[in-house]
Parts: sequence; C-alpha cells; structure tokens
Amino acid sequence: MGFKLTKEFLEEVSQAVVSNDTKWLETHALDLHDADLAIIIDELDEDEAKSLYDLLDEERKADILAELDDEAQEELIKSLSSEEIASQLENMDSDDAADLIADLPQEKIEEVISHIKDDEAADDIVDLLNYKEDTAGGLMQKEFIKAKIDWPVNRCVVELRKQAEEVEKVFTIYVVDDDDRLVGFLSLKRLLFASPTTLIQDLYQDKNMISVKTSDDDEHVARVMEKYDLVSLPVVDLNNKLVGRITIDDVVDVILEEAEKDMQLASGISEKIESSSSVWRISRARMPWLIIGMLGGILGAQVISGFEGGISQVPALAFFIPLITAMGGNVGVQSSAIVVQSLARGDDQFGSIFKKIGKEALVAVVNGILLSLIVYGFAYIFESTTLGLVVGISLFTVIMFAAVFGTLIPLMLDRYKIDPALATGPFITTLNDVLGLFIYLTIGVLFYGL
Amino acid sequence: MGFKLTKEFLEEVSQAVVSNDTKWLETHALDLHDADLAIIIDELDEDEAKSLYDLLDEERKADILAELDDEAQEELIKSLSSEEIASQLENMDSDDAADLIADLPQEKIEEVISHIKDDEAADDIVDLLNYKEDTAGGLMQKEFIKAKIDWPVNRCVVELRKQAEEVEKVFTIYVVDDDDRLVGFLSLKRLLFASPTTLIQDLYQDKNMISVKTSDDDEHVARVMEKYDLVSLPVVDLNNKLVGRITIDDVVDVILEEAEKDMQLASGISEKIESSSSVWRISRARMPWLIIGMLGGILGAQVISGFEGGISQVPALAFFIPLITAMGGNVGVQSSAIVVQSLARGDDQFGSIFKKIGKEALVAVVNGILLSLIVYGFAYIFESTTLGLVVGISLFTVIMFAAVFGTLIPLMLDRYKIDPALATGPFITTLNDVLGLFIYLTIGVLFYGL
Repeated sequence: MGFKLTKEFLEEVSQAVVSNDTKWLETHALDLHDADLAIIIDELDEDEAKSLYDLLDEERKADILAELDDEAQEELIKSLSSEEIASQLENMDSDDAADLIADLPQEKIEEVISHIKDDEAADDIVDLLNYKEDTAGGLMQKEFIKAKIDWPVNRCVVELRKQAEEVEKVFTIYVVDDDDRLVGFLSLKRLLFASPTTLIQDLYQDKNMISVKTSDDDEHVARVMEKYDLVSLPVVDLNNKLVGRITIDDVVDVILEEAEKDMQLASGISEKIESSSSVWRISRARMPWLIIGMLGGILGAQVISGFEGGISQVPALAFFIPLITAMGGNVGVQSSAIVVQSLARGDDQFGSIFKKIGKEALVAVVNGILLSLIVYGFAYIFESTTLGLVVGISLFTVIMFAAVFGTLIPLMLDRYKIDPALATGPFITTLNDVLGLFIYLTIGVLFYGL
Repeated sequence: MGFKLTKEFLEEVSQAVVSNDTKWLETHALDLHDADLAIIIDELDEDEAKSLYDLLDEERKADILAELDDEAQEELIKSLSSEEIASQLENMDSDDAADLIADLPQEKIEEVISHIKDDEAADDIVDLLNYKEDTAGGLMQKEFIKAKIDWPVNRCVVELRKQAEEVEKVFTIYVVDDDDRLVGFLSLKRLLFASPTTLIQDLYQDKNMISVKTSDDDEHVARVMEKYDLVSLPVVDLNNKLVGRITIDDVVDVILEEAEKDMQLASGISEKIESSSSVWRISRARMPWLIIGMLGGILGAQVISGFEGGISQVPALAFFIPLITAMGGNVGVQSSAIVVQSLARGDDQFGSIFKKIGKEALVAVVNGILLSLIVYGFAYIFESTTLGLVVGISLFTVIMFAAVFGTLIPLMLDRYKIDPALATGPFITTLNDVLGLFIYLTIGVLFYGL
C-alpha cells in the first residue's frame, strides 16, 4: 500500500541488476504492482531496464510494456525482435497493442503483425491502427463482452465465460441484435442474480444507453463519461454496430493530458513537453511565444518612442509604464482563464457573448475603480496631482479594455476552432501591453499638454 | 445519444412548466437521462425548477437532487421540509446524502437526520459528516459489497444479493476477515464463473490490494486511482477495518476541479469561482493578486524613479522597459509551469533541485542568446549600438534570472506546503518585473556612463 519509489530504492535495484542478484530482485522488485515496477523501469537506464525486464515471465512482460512511458517503451521495443514484439502484443489489450506499434515505421508494423499467431488479435490491432489517436476509435479496445438479445441467461453465462477470458475488466455487458447493432446493456450484477432461463430481452436495459461513434473526438468522450458517470462506454460505427469499448482509466489519462496541455498553452509552451524532455526540445517549445512576446515588446518600444518628446519633458511618465502593462496583462489573463474553463467544460451553450462581456465589464468596473483610487493616491503623493490623474484614469481604462479583450479573444478563437487556451497566456498579455502603453501615454500627453 | 441542451429546448421546457403541460414534459423532458434533466433544472429559475422537480417520483427525485449543481441544490433544499429531505436522503447514496446536507446549519442537520427512518442509513450519513470534504473519508460512500473470507461462493451470492440492493454500481467485492479487516478482493467476473462450493479464500486475490486511509487527502486518492487504473478503491480506518469505498466518477470530478483550481491560481484567481458566480464574488477573488501586481508596479515605479536622471538624459532607455518586464514574466511563467506540473503529478521524487535549476538555466541560455541577438539587432537599427548592447545584455540577464526564479519558487512553495500553482501566475510575473527593471536600468546607466 502506498509504495513510493525513493532514490535509495532505485539505486538498490540498479545495483542488484548490475550484480545480477536475481534473488533480491524477485523478492523486492518483481513482486511489486505492475504500475510501480513500470515506474522503476522507466527510471533505470536502457541496459538495466532491459535486464530487469528479461526476468519477467511472458504475460507480465506484456503488462509491464503497456504500462511504461513512451520513452522507455521505445527503447525496449528497439531491443526486441519482430517475433518477440508480436508475442507481447498477443498478451496485451488490443488498444495498448495498437498504441505500442503505431509509431513504428510501416514495414516494421507489417512485419510484426505477420508474426502474430492469433488471427483475430492481428485483425483487431490492424483495425485499431486505422483510427486517429485523439478519437473514440483511437481510445477504444476490441475486448468487450456482448450478449445477443435472444439468449437466455444460462447460455449468456456460458458465452460470457468464453469471452471473459480475453477481457481483463468486465463492467457492463453490451446487448446486440442479430446484426450486431447495439440495443442496450446489462450489468453483471443483474446477470448474477437472474434465473437461468430468463431471456436477456426481459432483463436488459435500453433506456439511457449512452454510446459514442468511432470518429468522436477524445474530449467529447471524456465529457460524456464524466457527465454520465460511466466506467465504460461502447463505441459504434456509422451503422450503430458495436465495434469497441472505452474504459474510464484511459479517459482519466485523456483528462489529465488535456489539463496539462491547457496549462502549458496558457503558460506559452506550444508543444507537449515534460521535465525530462531534452534542453533543445524545451527551448524550441518555448520559443514561439517568447518571440511573439518580444515582437510585442518591440512594438511597445515604438509606441513609447512616438512619445519620446513627452517623456524627456516629464520623465515621471516613464515610472508607471511597468504598472500599466502588468495590470493590463493580469486582468486580461484573469478574464480569459474563466472563459477558457467554461469553454473546456462545454457548459457554455447559453451565455451569449454579450452577456459574458457585460459581466466581465462590471467586474472590471468594480476592480478598476478600487485600484485606480489606490494608484491615484500613490502617484499623487509620489509626484503630483496630474500624474495621479493620468495614472488613475489610464489604469481604469486599461483594466476595462483588458477585461473585454480577455473575454472576447478566447470566445473568438473557439468560434474559429482554435484552442482558446492559447489566449490565456502571452497572447493576451502581449496585446494588452501594447494597447495599455498607447492608452497611458496618450492620456499622459493630453493631461500634461505636451 | 449526445443530448445537447439548446436555448430553444430550455424555453420550450420553461413554457411547458408555466402552462402546466405535464403531458409534453413527460414525453420530452422527464424521460431524459438524469444527468441531462439535472442540467435543465440547474438552468431553470427557482419556481420552475421546483415545479418540474415535483413531477418526479420519489426515487428519481433523490437521483436528480444528487446530480444538481450546488446552487440549484441549495434552492431546492430550502423549499423542502425536513421530512421531505430525510425521505430523499434515504433514496440516495450515502456520500451524496452527506454532501447534500453538510452545509446546512447544525440544528437543521440534526432535525433532518431525526426524520430518517432507516437507522443504518442515518448512521452512515452521520458517520460520513465527520470527515473533511477533501479527504478519502469525505469522498467515500458506505455502499459497497463485502464478503467474509470463509464463505463458500453460494453463500456469498445469497449475501451479495441482499447487499447489492443497496449498491447501485458493483465493481469489486471486498474480502474481509472476522474482524472486518480488509484482506483482499474478488472480481464479480470471478465469482460469476466459480463453482458454488468453492470457498472465497481459494478464490480471492490479496496481491496488489490497494486501499487508502480515511484521512488521506483527495489528491492522493486521485493519484492512486489513476496510477493503478482503479474504478473503485476501498477505504480503511487506522485498524485496517473496511469502512467505505470511493468510485472513479467522484474522483474524476476531483481531478477536474483540481485542474481548474490550478489554472485559476496560475491566472491569479484566489477563490474557486465559475462564470455564473456573482460580480462581487468574482471581483473579490481577483483582487488579492491584482493588488500584489499593483504593489509590484509601484515598486517598479520607485526603481525607475531612482534612475530618473538617466532617463531624462537618454529617454530611449524608457522604450524597452515593457520588453524587459514582459520577457522576464514570460520566461518565468514558462519555467514555473513545468515545475508545477511535475509537482502536481507527484513524479518529482528524484530530480534534485540543483539538477532542475541547471536544466532550466541551460534552456534559458539557449533562448536568451537567440532572443538577445534579435533584440540587439533591432535596438541597434532603431537607436544606437549602445542601446543595442544595453537591451541585449539586459535581456539575457533577465531571462537567466527569470528561469532560475521560475524554477526555484514553486519548489520552495511546495517544500513549505503552499500550493506551487500560486507561483505560476502574477507572483512570478511581479517579482520578475521589478528585478528586470533594476537589472536593465543599472546596465543602461553603466553603459551610457550616466
């Protein structure tokens, strides 16, 4: 319970692998839960990982391989022959198997599949490789339990026993008609307590049957499973034929990745990266937004240079440049974050755009008045009434604009099918910087009569 | 499939409720899935919601009440007598029941509970009210299926049939010893295919039994369920006695809320708010960070005023103030976002702090050199070699500092048990603004010999 990998334990494992201490490994490492053992193998270096992996029996090898992170998987796969990979795939759930080989070169995939002895398993994998990764088809597995609507319970139990060997986790039995079309579902609990001669058609439920199509995108799948509290979700093709099922564990991963991606986008990181990614990859992922930010800064420099005369006469105007740009950015980010979240949750079907902007504007008025009064007081004490007025009025104006843009931009991006999370970060900040400078310096020049 | 609430449909429902068109409502609204009907009731105004709700039969009333959002729940509860609430609670899962009344005043809770006829249900709710909302105890329900280790399969099926009436979703049977201590688990599938006289002790699994304690926090629960791909998780007390179970649907909600909270914190929003929250509440939640940002701006003003003489001699120095502050903020947010995510995932047990800072520093060197060269070229064309050098060298220095602080601050916050997501937003931006200004202007004064 609560195994937590420590640096010390990892070193012990590493030493035992190097010194070939199989006995120690068997009692200390190999009896761990798959998920924990996989994390250890993720962390070991290539050769040690392979040596530890080779100690596992065939079935466990497949389970562990499916659990590894992408990098460790890739390295292990490289060290295996096509026959070895094929035999692992046969011991895996079809979705894990397809994911594992999807990124290999086409000829390698064909070679591996030609070595799979179980034709049905091979067909399942080939079928799954057709679907895009981020769709229901890409998430689903071919292992599920189905019962024909005209079976009696006892026949169903016999058939299920056969099917269930292939299916690791049984949650719900899907009920199909003679054409394999999904008509309803039956819980295992209901089956367990039914009399042997009852017909499935008198037992199954068709009301509230929730399913998705193979082409539905993975975020839709996640939203459906979350909304209807499902642990498994049947996937049908265009003819409503049952072709697969998606289990909640895979969807939890989608939800977590989605949340991370949004957070990274909002922080101006354009590719999926992790702490462990290479320096070059991290640098590249961050560059686009930094360049946009810098172009914003250069544009800002041009705005200020347009007011050079004013600033050389009243240098105090320069003092509050960072305050104005920072506040524009902060307010913009706050406004957009809320909109981006509503959009991500999909609970935004009603709020008309104008209503949203109106509300943000109200919030901006409240915060703007308060903050402007504080900054007026400060600039007044610091320098003069004129500067106080200039800074106070500018800040209020900038906050208003920032709030409206912060709301409008993600909504517009969403309308044009661009991920609105893009808007939360440097994009909004940069826009508001330039706009804020212009407003502030214009008001400054007017008030000082420069 | 895929019912999606439209504004038009909502209006039709609303009209049917007002004109008391029960027939239309029965065929169009009441036959929807609970989750969809709950969303409709969430959106209707108070009186209409109540009228629609009153059309439901007792059991459905409880299901829908549990599905409503907090606001709609609160309004409906207000319109119900203690007896009515009590009868709804009896039809609900214990965790939903406890959540529903947890926020009522203490006397009201006692009154409601005194009206619950089923003593066991009342005890369960009272017990659950003891746990903090964000712990395993606060998430768990008292409905689960358990079997004694010395039962044979047929006795187990009989007992389960009794228990299963109470338990809506059965995933796993928990196996306990005579003292009710959790010793292992048994899948329904295994039970279904076992012979009636087999003993549970020959059938159950004890290896890899994962459980949590009532006091474990909800993020730990989410991490455990995600890591081990669980759909239900048993909860034990300090004596390892089985006291409840947590289902994945509740944990998905925790994960989504956690992700939203992190995103809001990173955007400088300090309280959980939604698009639908009141203007006052939204304003209040945003104020703390705006004030911190403003204090940063005021500090920045003081830094610049310290260089007033220099700026009045070389006003061009002011041009690049926004560029320097913006880039410091952007780099800092990027660096911190990655650290915050590693910390949130809990996969950070190895990376020593120095290794992390070293890597961020390398990324900063790569990006810093590139960006500084670009900005040098620009400032050179724009104004002079001196300004080019000042801006280029400052930008490089600021990027280095921002990267190191962006990494260090979330790690430090985490060490002191403060949510590191706080660091990603205005906090880092504000700090880097002030620091960046100081670096830039100091370098400027040195190079221009002011």
